[in-house]
Amino acid sequence: MNKFTKVKDVQIAYIGGGSRGWAWGLMSDLATEVALSGKVKLYDINYDAAYQNELIGNRLKDRVDVVGQWDYEAVRTLEEALTGSDFVIISILPGSFDEMHSDVHLPEKYGVYQSVGDTVGPGGLVRALRTIPIFVDIAEHIKEYSPNAWVINYTNPMTLCTRALYTTFPEIKAIGCCHEVFGTQKLLASMLEVLQGIENVDRREIDINVLGINHFTWIDKASYKGTDLFPLYSQFVDKYHESGFEGSEEGHWMNNHFKSAERVKFDLFKRFGLIAAAGDRHLAEFMPNTWYLKNPEKVREWKFGLTPVKWRKKNKQELIEKSNRLASGVEPFELNPTGEEGVDMIKALLGLGELITNVNIPNKGQMNGVPLETVVETNAVISYDNVRPVLAGKLPDSINNLVIRHVHNQEVTLQAALGQDKDLALQAFIQDPLLSTLTPEEAAELFEEMLSNTREYLNGWELQEV
Amino acid sequence: MNKFTKVKDVQIAYIGGGSRGWAWGLMSDLATEVALSGKVKLYDINYDAAYQNELIGNRLKDRVDVVGQWDYEAVRTLEEALTGSDFVIISILPGSFDEMHSDVHLPEKYGVYQSVGDTVGPGGLVRALRTIPIFVDIAEHIKEYSPNAWVINYTNPMTLCTRALYTTFPEIKAIGCCHEVFGTQKLLASMLEVLQGIENVDRREIDINVLGINHFTWIDKASYKGTDLFPLYSQFVDKYHESGFEGSEEGHWMNNHFKSAERVKFDLFKRFGLIAAAGDRHLAEFMPNTWYLKNPEKVREWKFGLTPVKWRKKNKQELIEKSNRLASGVEPFELNPTGEEGVDMIKALLGLGELITNVNIPNKGQMNGVPLETVVETNAVISYDNVRPVLAGKLPDSINNLVIRHVHNQEVTLQAALGQDKDLALQAFIQDPLLSTLTPEEAAELFEEMLSNTREYLNGWELQEV
Amino acid sequence: MNKFTKVKDVQIAYIGGGSRGWAWGLMSDLATEVALSGKVKLYDINYDAAYQNELIGNRLKDRVDVVGQWDYEAVRTLEEALTGSDFVIISILPGSFDEMHSDVHLPEKYGVYQSVGDTVGPGGLVRALRTIPIFVDIAEHIKEYSPNAWVINYTNPMTLCTRALYTTFPEIKAIGCCHEVFGTQKLLASMLEVLQGIENVDRREIDINVLGINHFTWIDKASYKGTDLFPLYSQFVDKYHESGFEGSEEGHWMNNHFKSAERVKFDLFKRFGLIAAAGDRHLAEFMPNTWYLKNPEKVREWKFGLTPVKWRKKNKQELIEKSNRLASGVEPFELNPTGEEGVDMIKALLGLGELITNVNIPNKGQMNGVPLETVVETNAVISYDNVRPVLAGKLPDSINNLVIRHVHNQEVTLQAALGQDKDLALQAFIQDPLLSTLTPEEAAELFEEMLSNTREYLNGWELQEV
Amino acid sequence: MNKFTKVKDVQIAYIGGGSRGWAWGLMSDLATEVALSGKVKLYDINYDAAYQNELIGNRLKDRVDVVGQWDYEAVRTLEEALTGSDFVIISILPGSFDEMHSDVHLPEKYGVYQSVGDTVGPGGLVRALRTIPIFVDIAEHIKEYSPNAWVINYTNPMTLCTRALYTTFPEIKAIGCCHEVFGTQKLLASMLEVLQGIENVDRREIDINVLGINHFTWIDKASYKGTDLFPLYSQFVDKYHESGFEGSEEGHWMNNHFKSAERVKFDLFKRFGLIAAAGDRHLAEFMPNTWYLKNPEKVREWKFGLTPVKWRKKNKQELIEKSNRLASGVEPFELNPTGEEGVDMIKALLGLGELITNVNIPNKGQMNGVPLETVVETNAVISYDNVRPVLAGKLPDSINNLVIRHVHNQEVTLQAALGQDKDLALQAFIQDPLLSTLTPEEAAELFEEMLSNTREYLNGWELQEV
Repeated sequence: MNKFTKVKDVQIAYIGGGSRGWAWGLMSDLATEVALSGKVKLYDINYDAAYQNELIGNRLKDRVDVVGQWDYEAVRTLEEALTGSDFVIISILPGSFDEMHSDVHLPEKYGVYQSVGDTVGPGGLVRALRTIPIFVDIAEHIKEYSPNAWVINYTNPMTLCTRALYTTFPEIKAIGCCHEVFGTQKLLASMLEVLQGIENVDRREIDINVLGINHFTWIDKASYKGTDLFPLYSQFVDKYHESGFEGSEEGHWMNNHFKSAERVKFDLFKRFGLIAAAGDRHLAEFMPNTWYLKNPEKVREWKFGLTPVKWRKKNKQELIEKSNRLASGVEPFELNPTGEEGVDMIKALLGLGELITNVNIPNKGQMNGVPLETVVETNAVISYDNVRPVLAGKLPDSINNLVIRHVHNQEVTLQAALGQDKDLALQAFIQDPLLSTLTPEEAAELFEEMLSNTREYLNGWELQEV
Repeated sequence: MNKFTKVKDVQIAYIGGGSRGWAWGLMSDLATEVALSGKVKLYDINYDAAYQNELIGNRLKDRVDVVGQWDYEAVRTLEEALTGSDFVIISILPGSFDEMHSDVHLPEKYGVYQSVGDTVGPGGLVRALRTIPIFVDIAEHIKEYSPNAWVINYTNPMTLCTRALYTTFPEIKAIGCCHEVFGTQKLLASMLEVLQGIENVDRREIDINVLGINHFTWIDKASYKGTDLFPLYSQFVDKYHESGFEGSEEGHWMNNHFKSAERVKFDLFKRFGLIAAAGDRHLAEFMPNTWYLKNPEKVREWKFGLTPVKWRKKNKQELIEKSNRLASGVEPFELNPTGEEGVDMIKALLGLGELITNVNIPNKGQMNGVPLETVVETNAVISYDNVRPVLAGKLPDSINNLVIRHVHNQEVTLQAALGQDKDLALQAFIQDPLLSTLTPEEAAELFEEMLSNTREYLNGWELQEV
Repeated sequence: MNKFTKVKDVQIAYIGGGSRGWAWGLMSDLATEVALSGKVKLYDINYDAAYQNELIGNRLKDRVDVVGQWDYEAVRTLEEALTGSDFVIISILPGSFDEMHSDVHLPEKYGVYQSVGDTVGPGGLVRALRTIPIFVDIAEHIKEYSPNAWVINYTNPMTLCTRALYTTFPEIKAIGCCHEVFGTQKLLASMLEVLQGIENVDRREIDINVLGINHFTWIDKASYKGTDLFPLYSQFVDKYHESGFEGSEEGHWMNNHFKSAERVKFDLFKRFGLIAAAGDRHLAEFMPNTWYLKNPEKVREWKFGLTPVKWRKKNKQELIEKSNRLASGVEPFELNPTGEEGVDMIKALLGLGELITNVNIPNKGQMNGVPLETVVETNAVISYDNVRPVLAGKLPDSINNLVIRHVHNQEVTLQAALGQDKDLALQAFIQDPLLSTLTPEEAAELFEEMLSNTREYLNGWELQEV
Repeated sequence: MNKFTKVKDVQIAYIGGGSRGWAWGLMSDLATEVALSGKVKLYDINYDAAYQNELIGNRLKDRVDVVGQWDYEAVRTLEEALTGSDFVIISILPGSFDEMHSDVHLPEKYGVYQSVGDTVGPGGLVRALRTIPIFVDIAEHIKEYSPNAWVINYTNPMTLCTRALYTTFPEIKAIGCCHEVFGTQKLLASMLEVLQGIENVDRREIDINVLGINHFTWIDKASYKGTDLFPLYSQFVDKYHESGFEGSEEGHWMNNHFKSAERVKFDLFKRFGLIAAAGDRHLAEFMPNTWYLKNPEKVREWKFGLTPVKWRKKNKQELIEKSNRLASGVEPFELNPTGEEGVDMIKALLGLGELITNVNIPNKGQMNGVPLETVVETNAVISYDNVRPVLAGKLPDSINNLVIRHVHNQEVTLQAALGQDKDLALQAFIQDPLLSTLTPEEAAELFEEMLSNTREYLNGWELQEV
């Protein structure tokens, strides 16, 4: 790849995207980026969805407000998508929302509530069991058809998806990207406005050191132009710990399934001293269920939302209708840069300027106190054909203890998925903090039923008859 | 030290022993060991208790059945005890049984039961907070008065006592000794009798690889004269999992606070695949309280005992009376070798033959998957002035996850004790699995009350008014 | 420190500088930097030299071409210099050029030639022995008087000076800075001009991964705007391996003691496959003396210079005369930005923009294959109050073997200097590759004489009578 | 394996042995061991040699002085030998003495002398290049035909042979055995006799801690029944440093190619403070050639022998003649226990008693300061189906520096052999200390010629035309 030629001829394989949201975001980001052009091959197990995205994407070419020229082409095989690609973007839904319904809501029978259910907890673990074989398959295809491509993953559970890629093809050049940390940077920017009257701070100006695992990352150093933000954050937490901080952006935790009033984050700061850097809905799922998810009333007190899967199903329906309108041209495509960094990363990897940001990659020593090779989230320097982690140091032992039980549990989950080993999977399941109030027998019973509901994706497993 | 002279002139400092049992055991073991003779200096914060032991010990000298000649001398200061000593044995009760009563029984208010309460769990943690400063003080004295002596610790919480010694004086030559693993070797010997009709197997003939932390050690390899014992143990567990295995030795779990029917051990084997190598009363305390200690009825089903502190108080009274009789000569001292290995270790360290056994020492790489320098229990080769750990390997990830949460929690407890930092101590406390059903607020409330009950030993701490 | 106030009030302690060159460079760089102002306290064991620098520095204030306003003040004690300082810059000459004369030229008696003699080799090692105590003393003062200041060291031997600072005061915030890598970046820029006709490439545009130890660093990845530079460098080496590459800059290896024709660098690339990133004069000293420094004729063939100490003495005289002229105002001070990065680092550490560059700091895992805590040179991200190394990976084993023998030898040298242990120092000395043709007896004899010549700086050593 | 059955039915595959000496030693050791019996399958690329050994071995069965009953059978393929075997013993000559003649004597053209030439140095390195592919092949066969067998290797270069086995088949259960350390234990026993009048000390009573790599191991702790031997050894060295110590055993360095007067060992102790634990002929080859192997006169002064390959050729001829006599029964087979530990190890691995001894196995943390996975020599505990290294600690940095340059060089040699990469092999070759007085050009020339002489064993290499 050479900037003088290749930036005009970048080839991207987009895996997934049938659920529309993420694919449209990429289209928007590519359309508004002047430095790149090329081709996007769209692959989805639902070819029609990919084809509709092809139509939508290609409609952009003639528009005067579009500065990045891209061809979109839906293809019918992974092989076709990958062959010749410089970049591979993965953003899939593992299984359908029916499986996710079981992941999220079945545990409620046992009094176990989940706000998202896609990372850890009973839902995240079972989701991982059905997702890992898919990522093994993708990694094998990448090894064969595009071994030198850079792979950007957006799928959850992020840690285990990325880990499965590296386990299958250790030389893969893959990074897991997630915007949750950006949200915390924005919160710190809001804090500067509220407490100091400094307006319009860009989240990128908030310099942070990040360490942890995806959706359970922590900030142990934060500054803004030479000012240490920790004393300020301490004040901020004191002020808003009880009431919560709603912020100025649109959306409110009571009527938006993705918002919160940051009370979980503030409580973790008061108890442990560092800034937890993910949305409260995610953070809560990493703690014992007596803490923030004890029951729906408690969740309301903590002022964050439980995202019901029926909302996701409804939302999907609306997106399909919108997709029809966009594909036919009835509705014009709105260019809304997403704030995601995928396109920035592509530019940096092509040699168009260095980027320092948080990524999910195997631990090569960047995070002490966590086993090597497990996937961690820390800052990295991204430059031409290169992602080099920045040494992040070590979490304090007490916070590290919260984190590594998930790290080890994820390792066991990975081994169980690769070996289709139900006993081993159960050993991880019963150690999940969200199940800390169940007896092992109850946990085993729940696990059996959850597995059964996702059996379609568990080829080779020996499951009980239902 | 040279065997030709020094074995006649060994000097031992015995710290503690006022509670009698352990001191008398040592007297018995020394009296029946022909290869050693010398002097034991007895130091206890209760001088009278030490003095009574002096009288009892010195009465042994004239007896014809005593082959090891030792002088006993009670001394009034640690300095006196340590000066000139080749070995230091530590076996103290940190605080009194009143504090232990709070450790063990106060959590019952919150539905948290403990079978021992001296290692982990709320009781073990608070006990550690008051014990660590005592061990810091002992280590400082050893550094000054007997830096080259070998130190053998029997006090619980074993891991943190040993860790505190090394943290204070890194060059210390200390080992923590515990007989719990021996009990599991004996169980395997009983198994050979029951399943194979092989009688009188000595526990030392059961070759094992041990790894874990004190009272939560695991065996991943066991053999007897060239026979792998794992397939046999699997059969054994299948047979006795439900009923429990009572064994042939005196004592039964229903009327002996120290016995069990091994059901916890068997259950852990069925769930995790390795042999847990400690008494069930200890093992149960390392797991979430929904597992084996949910309530007294559950404990009875699992067939092990909760040791009430009032029993300890009563027992102590009986020992004091016995002590009076022994000191005055009314009752003769019975020579009963204890089966402990302290004297064997002393011999090995003096160059009288190599010994391979399990010890608690800092992790220098002998146990993978656990941070370096934390105290672990694995096999070691003990020889002249030398204790070298044998590489034990790594626990499977799922078991390791059970173990390391305690390892990290103990590290935090250590830091909290050294820094007299209540907030930090609470961070460890609320992560203990025995408290997994409490809310953080309940845990904090319990902690505050427990600390208050042990405040006499928490100099320098800022505690709430009661 | 806060950018809104502190950039106007930066306080720098400058230790050394009596030899003028480096101090004037800093004055130039500060005078041309608009974002900073404040005060520089000048401390040198030669107070008069510091005072002359005070005069020279303060003369700049009124000049219209000076945009950075600084007060200069010579002080008489280290304590005075350090108290209140935000930054400490160390640039001293350890001992005088008389000692250096012995370091560099005495080994010639044994056929051992050195091109610089300040890093490794017999000269570098003996220089280290007299420098380490000075840095121990500086570190102790920093610990007492300015523990939070950032320390920037320019003194050689860089690795051991920096290591001595951290050994003495482990919490010190010190970085060792060196421009040798910049020179190699410039060479790559020249290569782009010569082979591709691309002009005016700034060295900062050459993106590199650096790893090794100071003056023996290697580049294993280099790119320019999305072009991998390794294939090009291979062509470049093929073309200029025999003739050498003189470059276009002023100075030629035949009449400039600091220039070379890069033949050593090219030869190392042909033999080992990576780009050695320091001047040839330095590189040659790390290899066995049969390679590039066998004798003066060989050195001429390799087209680099041996820098005689008499040149340094003469040069010093000229600088003193120039200093007199500058101080009196007879000669105007010329503003020549140095290309050093000290001031850029100060800006980054104050929060004025992130900087990624190569620094010498303890290995916290950034360079695999080299012991932790030894000082290595790799890239780091410098931001507000923070220097975080970027993971550099590992050198290929064969190159690593060239490097680590020096790493270990430097560790032994450090221990010897701290313990004033001549036997131990000799164990390092006889392992230096530049002495590989001597017998141990010859090496010992040479060592004794060299030590004797630097005895004034070896307080507490037991040296042979001369 | 169970002792009650298997000790009667042990199956051993013996690979090599055509050169007779080692095979006869094994026969002797097996014949005099009462606890074992079974079958030995003999495989050699020279079938006739193996067959002659079959005849010789089977002649032992009827003898009254033979207590261990073994059947010997020569087989024609590795597959046959390995199938069903419990143990595999490897003792081969890689190539012939013609290749070894080049290894040892060709470097003499450049003034480089070697006393053995089979471990490191130019000879050892080239020998490794031709041996590694053979061991790769053996490991592949073991993986296929006897993956659970224990493999005992006696072939040199020990480190790289063992490393090649593990690299090819990581689950292999292989140990490298060497008697050189035993010789040093015997020297210490002699010392006890000479200095203290203690007679008949068995080498096994000398308790030592061993660490290093094969033929370059070091003892940092030695005791005899509670007496530290270091002060005594220091006296011993002072007494015999100049004259050498001849010992009382038969053989003298002047007329025995395998003896020495231990002057190299004593000199290393004086210079570095630890006891080097191998024969002087081996030790000398690890140091720069200016130290002990400068020229034949120097070697004579150091009182050890250079073993000429023509002696080996002559000796081989004598052994063949002896073999004829033994096979035909003309000469009776003498039972001479070898003092090797192979049979003791077999017993321990079968569960017949624990053994602690020095072995060559991959570094799993038993030796700090040396990369993990490289093969090191330290103590291990050998028990039923189990070899567990004992933590040996770390060599002092200065000695470690002598050792690890060979460790890294051997890693490069391994990679070169596996990749048939001449350039890489040369990178190792030119770093060998025995070549420290050559220029790189001379070294390259020598290397090319040596490779050419061993080309028959370098399939796939691109070698220069001769």
